[in-house]
Amino acid sequence: MQRTEISTLGEFGLIKHLTESIEIKNPETKYGVGDDCAVLSYSDDKEVLVTTDLLMEGVHFDLTYLPLKHLGYKSAMVNLSDIYAMGGIPKQITVSLALSKRFCIEDMEDFYDGLRLACDAHGVDIVGGDTTSSRTGLAISITAIGEVEKGKAIYRNGAKETDLICVSGDLGGAYMGFQLLEREKEVYYQQIESAKSDAERMAIEQPDFSGREYLLERQMKPEARRDIILALRKAGIQPTSMMDISDGLSSELLHICTQSKCGCRVYEDRIPIDYQTAVMAEEMNMNLTTCALNGGEDYELLFTVPIADHEKVEQLEGVKLIGHITKPELGCALITRDGAEFELKAQGWNPLK
Amino acid sequence: MQRTEISTLGEFGLIKHLTESIEIKNPETKYGVGDDCAVLSYSDDKEVLVTTDLLMEGVHFDLTYLPLKHLGYKSAMVNLSDIYAMGGIPKQITVSLALSKRFCIEDMEDFYDGLRLACDAHGVDIVGGDTTSSRTGLAISITAIGEVEKGKAIYRNGAKETDLICVSGDLGGAYMGFQLLEREKEVYYQQIESAKSDAERMAIEQPDFSGREYLLERQMKPEARRDIILALRKAGIQPTSMMDISDGLSSELLHICTQSKCGCRVYEDRIPIDYQTAVMAEEMNMNLTTCALNGGEDYELLFTVPIADHEKVEQLEGVKLIGHITKPELGCALITRDGAEFELKAQGWNPLK
Repeated sequence: MQRTEISTLGEFGLIKHLTESIEIKNPETKYGVGDDCAVLSYSDDKEVLVTTDLLMEGVHFDLTYLPLKHLGYKSAMVNLSDIYAMGGIPKQITVSLALSKRFCIEDMEDFYDGLRLACDAHGVDIVGGDTTSSRTGLAISITAIGEVEKGKAIYRNGAKETDLICVSGDLGGAYMGFQLLEREKEVYYQQIESAKSDAERMAIEQPDFSGREYLLERQMKPEARRDIILALRKAGIQPTSMMDISDGLSSELLHICTQSKCGCRVYEDRIPIDYQTAVMAEEMNMNLTTCALNGGEDYELLFTVPIADHEKVEQLEGVKLIGHITKPELGCALITRDGAEFELKAQGWNPLK
Repeated sequence: MQRTEISTLGEFGLIKHLTESIEIKNPETKYGVGDDCAVLSYSDDKEVLVTTDLLMEGVHFDLTYLPLKHLGYKSAMVNLSDIYAMGGIPKQITVSLALSKRFCIEDMEDFYDGLRLACDAHGVDIVGGDTTSSRTGLAISITAIGEVEKGKAIYRNGAKETDLICVSGDLGGAYMGFQLLEREKEVYYQQIESAKSDAERMAIEQPDFSGREYLLERQMKPEARRDIILALRKAGIQPTSMMDISDGLSSELLHICTQSKCGCRVYEDRIPIDYQTAVMAEEMNMNLTTCALNGGEDYELLFTVPIADHEKVEQLEGVKLIGHITKPELGCALITRDGAEFELKAQGWNPLK
C-alpha cells in the first residue's frame, strides 16, 4: 500500500487535496471550505441547530479494528444523529483533524471517503476542513449544523405525564459488537504472543464473524435515523421530547425525566432487541436487558408522544412503544417480565470515570 | 491550592458545574447548553458564519508558561477573530475539551474563567460545552458562530488591482513574546538542572519581564479586532478582501493574492511594528522584518479597500496602509527600505511540517 508523508503537501495542501472535489448540495450553503469561515444562509422560518463532538483515539475509537473509512463515516454519523435528535435536518458539517506522524495522506483519504459517504447519504455539505498535528494519536472534532422549522425543535424537557415512550430500531447491538471486537482483539494478541516464528504469525487467521455481521455493522457503521424524523413529520406527530441514544437507554431516559421533571415506567419485554444481540449476550454470559439498557452507541431515537398519538405512532415502522411518562414522585422504573419493579440507573459509558 | 478530581463530578456533572451560571445575552440564541444541539435563530437579512479550530497541547500551546485562564481566553479569541475576518459579528461559541487525568476541576474553572472573560467582552454566548477524556494532554475544540448582513461577507478572493492593502495594529509582537517565553523556559530548566539542593531550586527567581509586558500580552492575551470591524462599518468602507493574521503577514497576503488572482507590492517601511518588538528582535539578533512578515498569532486584520476609499481609510485609527494590489504577472513583492524588491514567501508556522 502506498504511503505518502503528509509533510509533502503541508497543512494547506492537505486540506485542499481532501476538499477540492467537494460539491455543495444545499442552497443554505453559500460558501464552504477555503476562507476564514463558512457562510450559510437560513430562512426566517427556520431555527439553526448546532452540535459538536470531540473524538479522541484510545478513548472513543480503537484503530486496531476500526478502519479509518469507517471512523470517518461514524464520526459524521454521530453528529448528524444529534441534529435529528432535535427533530431537525442536518445541512452542513465542519471537520477538524489533529494527526500524529504515523498517519499518511492515504489514511486521510480513507477517513474522508467515509466522511463523504455519510454526508452524501444525508445530503450534507462539508463546509470546513482543518488539519493540524498532534503529539500522540488522532483527534477528530466535528460540528454539525442543521435546521428545523421555527418553534418545532424537540427538546429533552417537554415530556408530560401519560406521554408514551417510543424508541426506534433495536438496542444493545452496538455494545455487543464492541464486546465481540474486543474479545477477538484479545485472542489475536494472544496468538501473536505465543507464535514462535514469522511463519506462525503469518498463519494466524482472521476471526470468523459470520452470523454476527449485524453486530459489527451496529458498532462500526451506525446509521442516524433521518427516516424516523421524516416518518414522524409525514404522520403529523410532534414528539414532546427527544434524544438520540448514545450513552444507553437508561442514561438518556433519566436525562429526559430529569429535564422534564417527571418519572417513567419502561417495560422490559417491550425493549427491542435483535436476535444476534441476544445470542451474543448469551454466549458472553451477560444479562441481555442490562446490555440493552446500558449499552451505548446505538444512535437510535428515544422520544415521547402525547397519548392521543397512540394509534398514529403504532403504525410507524421501526418504532416501538416501551413505556410511559409518570408523575415525578413515581421515579424512573423498569418493570421486568415477571412484574417486578426496579429503579432505572445510568450505568452508561462515562469517559471521565 | 485545592485540587478536586474530575471523577467526583463525572462528565455531565462537570459540564453542568462549568456552564450552569451562563446567562444568554443574544436574542439570536434560543437555547444554549443542555440538549443535543444549541438552537439559534438568525433573521433573513443575515448570513450565518461558522468557523472551527482544534488546539492540541504541545503543538498549539505550552502550559509550562501559559496559565489555563489565558488559554481559555486565547482559545475563544482566535475563533472570534475568524468571524471578524469575514466582516461579521460573533454571537455564539461551542467548546469541547478532552482532558487527561492530570487536570482537576479547578483547572477547568480557570479555563472557563478565561473563556467567559473573552466571550463577555465580545457579547458572545457559550451555547455548547462538552468534556471528555484524553489519553495524553489537553485538546480544545471551539466553534464560533456569527452573523453578517446578507451579501456583505468579506472573502479572501475579492481583491482587485490598485486596491490598497491595509493592516490593523502592529505585527511580530506575539512572535517575539513567544521567543521570549521560550528563552526564559530554557533558562529556568538549566537552573533547575544545575541546582545542587532543594534550597537552591527554591531560590531560582522568576524571570524579569519588565519592559516586555506588551510582548507577553500579544502572545498570551491576543485581542480580536471587533473595533476595526465597527470602525469600517461606521466609515462606510466595505473591504474587497479580508483575513486575520494568524500564520504571518506573508502567508496571509499570499492567500489573498492566490485566491483573488492578483499580485501585490508591500513596503517594508510601512509595516507597523511596536518598539518592544524591535528591541527584542535586536536583542535576539533576529531580522525584524522577517519577524513581522512571518511571525504568527498577532490576530490583526489584513484587508484590501478600493483606492477610492484612500482618504476614509487613512483616517481610521489603528489602521496602516502597507501597499497595493497589482496585476498577477507582477507577483507578490516586498519593497525594502533601500528600494530592492524581494519575492514574498510564506515561511509562517506550519504545524504539519
